[in-house]
Amino acid sequence: MRISPALENNTFEATELSAPKKSWHHTLIGHPLRTADAPHQTIGKTVGLAVFASDALSSTAYATQEIMMILAIAGTGALRNVFPISLAIFTLMVIVTISYEQTIHAYPGGGGAYIVARDNLGELPAQTAGAALLTDYILTVAVSISSGVAQIASAFPELYPYRVAIAVGMVFLVTLINLRGVKESGTIFAIPTYFFVIAMTATVILGFLRVFTGTLGQVVNPPELSLERAAEMVTPFLLLHAFASGTSALTGIEAISNGITAFREPRSRNAGITLIWMSSILGSLFLGISFLSSRIAAVPSEGETIISQLARTVFNGQGFPYLALIGGTAVILIMAANTAFADFPRLGALHAGDGFLPRQLTFRGSRLVYSWGIVALAILASLLIILFQASVTRLIPLYAIGVFLSFSLSQAGMAKRWWKSGRLKPGEEVVEPGSVIKLDRHWLFKMVINGFGAVCTFVVMIVFAITKFQDGAWIIIFLIPTMVTAFFAIHNHYKTLARKLSLEGFKSNSRVTRHRVVLFIAGVHKGSLIALNYARTMSMDVTAIHVSIDPNETQKVREKWELYGQGTRLVILDSPYRLLVEPMMEYINKLLATRQPTELLTVVVPQFVPAHWWENLLHNQTALLLRFALLFKPGLVILEVPYQV
Amino acid sequence: MRISPALENNTFEATELSAPKKSWHHTLIGHPLRTADAPHQTIGKTVGLAVFASDALSSTAYATQEIMMILAIAGTGALRNVFPISLAIFTLMVIVTISYEQTIHAYPGGGGAYIVARDNLGELPAQTAGAALLTDYILTVAVSISSGVAQIASAFPELYPYRVAIAVGMVFLVTLINLRGVKESGTIFAIPTYFFVIAMTATVILGFLRVFTGTLGQVVNPPELSLERAAEMVTPFLLLHAFASGTSALTGIEAISNGITAFREPRSRNAGITLIWMSSILGSLFLGISFLSSRIAAVPSEGETIISQLARTVFNGQGFPYLALIGGTAVILIMAANTAFADFPRLGALHAGDGFLPRQLTFRGSRLVYSWGIVALAILASLLIILFQASVTRLIPLYAIGVFLSFSLSQAGMAKRWWKSGRLKPGEEVVEPGSVIKLDRHWLFKMVINGFGAVCTFVVMIVFAITKFQDGAWIIIFLIPTMVTAFFAIHNHYKTLARKLSLEGFKSNSRVTRHRVVLFIAGVHKGSLIALNYARTMSMDVTAIHVSIDPNETQKVREKWELYGQGTRLVILDSPYRLLVEPMMEYINKLLATRQPTELLTVVVPQFVPAHWWENLLHNQTALLLRFALLFKPGLVILEVPYQV
Repeated sequence: MRISPALENNTFEATELSAPKKSWHHTLIGHPLRTADAPHQTIGKTVGLAVFASDALSSTAYATQEIMMILAIAGTGALRNVFPISLAIFTLMVIVTISYEQTIHAYPGGGGAYIVARDNLGELPAQTAGAALLTDYILTVAVSISSGVAQIASAFPELYPYRVAIAVGMVFLVTLINLRGVKESGTIFAIPTYFFVIAMTATVILGFLRVFTGTLGQVVNPPELSLERAAEMVTPFLLLHAFASGTSALTGIEAISNGITAFREPRSRNAGITLIWMSSILGSLFLGISFLSSRIAAVPSEGETIISQLARTVFNGQGFPYLALIGGTAVILIMAANTAFADFPRLGALHAGDGFLPRQLTFRGSRLVYSWGIVALAILASLLIILFQASVTRLIPLYAIGVFLSFSLSQAGMAKRWWKSGRLKPGEEVVEPGSVIKLDRHWLFKMVINGFGAVCTFVVMIVFAITKFQDGAWIIIFLIPTMVTAFFAIHNHYKTLARKLSLEGFKSNSRVTRHRVVLFIAGVHKGSLIALNYARTMSMDVTAIHVSIDPNETQKVREKWELYGQGTRLVILDSPYRLLVEPMMEYINKLLATRQPTELLTVVVPQFVPAHWWENLLHNQTALLLRFALLFKPGLVILEVPYQV
Repeated sequence: MRISPALENNTFEATELSAPKKSWHHTLIGHPLRTADAPHQTIGKTVGLAVFASDALSSTAYATQEIMMILAIAGTGALRNVFPISLAIFTLMVIVTISYEQTIHAYPGGGGAYIVARDNLGELPAQTAGAALLTDYILTVAVSISSGVAQIASAFPELYPYRVAIAVGMVFLVTLINLRGVKESGTIFAIPTYFFVIAMTATVILGFLRVFTGTLGQVVNPPELSLERAAEMVTPFLLLHAFASGTSALTGIEAISNGITAFREPRSRNAGITLIWMSSILGSLFLGISFLSSRIAAVPSEGETIISQLARTVFNGQGFPYLALIGGTAVILIMAANTAFADFPRLGALHAGDGFLPRQLTFRGSRLVYSWGIVALAILASLLIILFQASVTRLIPLYAIGVFLSFSLSQAGMAKRWWKSGRLKPGEEVVEPGSVIKLDRHWLFKMVINGFGAVCTFVVMIVFAITKFQDGAWIIIFLIPTMVTAFFAIHNHYKTLARKLSLEGFKSNSRVTRHRVVLFIAGVHKGSLIALNYARTMSMDVTAIHVSIDPNETQKVREKWELYGQGTRLVILDSPYRLLVEPMMEYINKLLATRQPTELLTVVVPQFVPAHWWENLLHNQTALLLRFALLFKPGLVILEVPYQV
């Protein structure tokens, strides 16, 4: 920092702040970045697909399996329903994709459910959508990492007992990468994402070729079907239940709409094209995997994943192609958590910016990322993994419900927006915080699409909540309203504070008729006399206070004060119960009780500052205790005058 | 507290401090006591024996057993040596008792090893004696409680696995009793101490009667002899080793000489008589138990104590008399810890008063006891119990070495004192901190007695250190010098501090040529303007500082400051790396670098004080961070102006 001779000027600016010093954590997360470097940190379509698609694409690794897990309750015969159910989910996927494509173009500044709901439906729906998405991002991390570890454990069963520790370690790794910042993590993630897409596509195509040539058999040595519940009939409820589990395939589709600002210009176009690519890949892989799994009679199991069974059947054993696919799947799953790490802090910052979450979430760390949000996400996801022992099947009932709530609110908001657009005259504009509304010729058509999407996703959410209520969905149904309540409590705090601090009608009442200074002294020595000198520069109205515990000590203080006290009045407070802070507090309370409004009261405490920390143990921390006791007293200032030796 | 209208008088004293409010911990440890109540808290001989003798007497419960534990290494045949060894220890006991009787009369104000060594031998021997005694008190608690739990586990073997938890619970109980204060704990302890003395005496007498009538057989079903080491020969080393273990019988004899001030007047006479009673009871019981244990062929074991084997042999089974003795022994052992709880804090306060331990140890708590010392002892003893799994045999090698070091130093000091006494003329007096030396007619005789005691106990200490070095004595041999070093480091700190704070040659340099006030503001609102007003009462030389992270925010601050800043100059610090505290620190460092000696620098930070603690989570703790960063900067005052809403 260069302090120019203009130090005293009213408009002085010290611009040359020296760069932060090298520190241990810079080697982990990289050297600090300037705020001015921020706009360069954007990405193109190719890297964008890698960053935002990993969440959506990776769900192909578990969605089919989770459908089968539910169907298996009615026995292996019921497993043939997996493909029809997958088709229904595919249809839903098409509807949601079209809806979001419209959203991306309407909200080039980022059109997550939160912003769309806020601009079109109001604060309560917006906070609800936000809460739903935040819980969902945490679950994305927990589910993806758990599934990734499950893939690894399928290939190397001896790792199964250590799955929780491995999963938490993975969360830590992804956290570190994200603390470095989005661009670098994009580059790191591009290669494996494309590797997974190619490997999985190749597997599915080879599988189909073998089906058509009639050479694809059934799984050799499938894992045993673990029937926790008694065999049931294939009821409509069971089918809906299985469908609900499969909707986890849709999670992650919304990621791009939240992250439009991370794309290179033209943002909306780039983001929209990326979305369509992503959904096409996702849909085809999901359908292909479901079809083939059913064909080879794969059996859902916690011990070996469906992907593993499919791969070793298609490739005739666990050779290199098998390992490549399992490895690729595991890596993309673990990286899928990265999508949540990109979006959770961004959404948290949006909430915080609107005053519904602590302001600290809007601060960007030394690497220009929202460090607080990243760390919070890492902690919460790790807790979930530990609590649910890294089991995907146990985590799934908590999962997609939040996503569908936000889908539904977002599309309802979009429908409302098209309706507003239809009310406008040509050339007329309505400017909202998140976007600008103009008349759209196709507003009715677009409104119907988004409205239909809203209804569909709402129905799916209800189905999910009912069929999975007792498996864990109740936790989320309870959690989201709790979060919304907390958000409004926080908002209320900031609003109240802003109103109370507002300068509207503020009269600068700087007239002070009396500035009374109370100086506490434990003894008469250099430290207390330095404090006395300081107190006398503030006001001539100084009273020294000594709490008397030992009469001999008090007599000494009294005599020395006659000599060195510069005539300042000394009040002795007797303390028959050998208390220090309480008599001081009582004295101050008496002073406050008789105080005039234009009177200032300052409490000065000499504070010994040792050369070594351990020397603190050899002294009373009276100043500290007094400070805590006085912190909540309105209208007085407490001040420690330090003396170093 | 009554604040009279004389508030402004120089000699005002606010004597009527209201008694402390009822609090949860008063129900545990009793209502606060006034300092003026202190002299009434003394005790007579009967209660004194109960308070101070429990340590010494209770060692009869394990001393015999620990001798046998060592002898058993050479097989059951070696156990017949237990009585001759006990006789040797008895002789040592007589020597030490006579020595201490002389000490009590010479030091009516309390003549522990620390004071005697300090007055006659100098600071280093005194600190060594003190360190030895302090470690020993901690071990007294650990050994006594562990042995008490072992007695209980002998009667109820199903409790054996929970012995550590039970022992720690007992420590907690004794701690509570001691936090209430000495008189009450004396009363509580008198009944069980006398119960033990009567029960144990009755058992020994009945045992001897049965020996003389030839009706005392051997132990039925003795515990198995656990031979950890290969059978050895009965070597002189083994006999000395067993002797060393038995010297634990002497621990506690010094307790009365430390605690003379707790006795009613005439102190020395009362304390001296109590000492002789105590030693007589201790010696007879110890010899009796050793004789009978050998006679009934008791076998030392961690599972069943010797006392338990003796009792069920004398009483022919585990009926009511057996349970009464075991119960009484267990209770006295647990209460023996009380002796240490009476003496450890008192000795700690002596060290602290001389500036060798933190001053806080001299403060008496609301019940007039040295609460800090009591709590410290409880924590350290609990740690030892957990570390050594409440095993007496594993704790014993750490035990008596400290006691014998302090015995030896104390008696050497006494010998030196008699020698000084012999140099005086009749009527002449030397006044020392702890006592007054006059010519004593029998000075030569008394010097020989104390000198002989010093030599004997020194030799025993050396024997102990050598024979038990590898069993754990090395810990104490390492610990005591470390403690002494720490004591001198603390002493050095206080001496240096006192010199630096000394007012000798102090010139009151209250001339201040400039008082510069730096005010940090995050924004312009009521809170920062209240701080500005305050700053302006201190000095007209106020500079407001704003750290700029967001340029838009900074522009707003600049504009609002024009309006509300009362013309105070505003400095904007650009922070391209989005840091808050670091730019402030850099600015302050620059100011400090160019400061004149007569210039004062005060840093003012507006501090938001929330109505509820959780609201703190919604705000940056900039003031707190800045405070920590500035605490070690010499020569500036930091001051938070609070604003409550």
